[in-house]
Amino acid sequence: MPDSIVFYHNPRSRAAIVHWMLEEVGADYTVHPINFEKGDHKKPAFLAVNPMGKIPTIVVDGTVITEAPAIIAWLADAYPTAALAPAVGSLQRGSYYRWLFFGGSCIEPALADQLFARPQPDRKGALGWGSYNDVIDTIESALRPGPTCLARTSVPPISMSARN
Amino acid sequence: MPDSIVFYHNPRSRAAIVHWMLEEVGADYTVHPINFEKGDHKKPAFLAVNPMGKIPTIVVDGTVITEAPAIIAWLADAYPTAALAPAVGSLQRGSYYRWLFFGGSCIEPALADQLFARPQPDRKGALGWGSYNDVIDTIESALRPGPTCLARTSVPPISMSARN
Repeated sequence: MPDSIVFYHNPRSRAAIVHWMLEEVGADYTVHPINFEKGDHKKPAFLAVNPMGKIPTIVVDGTVITEAPAIIAWLADAYPTAALAPAVGSLQRGSYYRWLFFGGSCIEPALADQLFARPQPDRKGALGWGSYNDVIDTIESALRPGPTCLARTSVPPISMSARN
Repeated sequence: MPDSIVFYHNPRSRAAIVHWMLEEVGADYTVHPINFEKGDHKKPAFLAVNPMGKIPTIVVDGTVITEAPAIIAWLADAYPTAALAPAVGSLQRGSYYRWLFFGGSCIEPALADQLFARPQPDRKGALGWGSYNDVIDTIESALRPGPTCLARTSVPPISMSARN
């Protein structure tokens, strides 16, 4: 258990994800509000913590952790009684990492390209993260066996009735 | 130790990162070559494994793992004798996750924006991943204390002579 977690927060940001996770694991933490209108996130005091000027950011016993999925993965590990991460080294842990990274590395940039109709400079019609359609197809394919199948891609289809 | 790792590979891709890691941890694995000229990565046989049609992809005892940092993080955990990941739940693990996610979620999309001079639709001049300049500043700031400082942002400056 850490001695101190400082949580830089504004509910109108990805920090809401981390807020949820802090509550899920039952962590003790101090909220440091970030006022976007006042530009708190671009002031020297905060840039000294995270030079990206972005939240969520947490500081745990003096160590800075940024990037929402990184913070979530760390909290899941640090509070094992919450049982929110598969066992380290297990096959399920491979799927867990896969989808954690898929969010920021594929879904977000592909979604921004689609949302803003950004031109694709690459001759193959998509940048390295993949096309919007491929991202949607991949999520649909992974969810097809049932709502819990992201936990492991190779699990057999789950009958809805069998789950109740 | 897994019974079987199938590694979908082409050296002219991010799969080279995973190839390196497989060797670093001393894993036994089978290479399944992906020929880009023949479009192997967009053929049904491979799309059934990874609908993104992207490599690296590994299949471990029937479980699909994609996204280079996810594969690397899984291998580091699954082969602990290689000692390539900080202890689960430690502060160093927080920094480790931070920079693993920073690569695909910030560096890559910001770099593509800069490289291809992509227009920024957001009124603040940068999409959610941050601007190219912020990414570079953040990396420089994190590396300032010394070459090993990414291991933990809060460590004091390391003297080069003291390391030898």
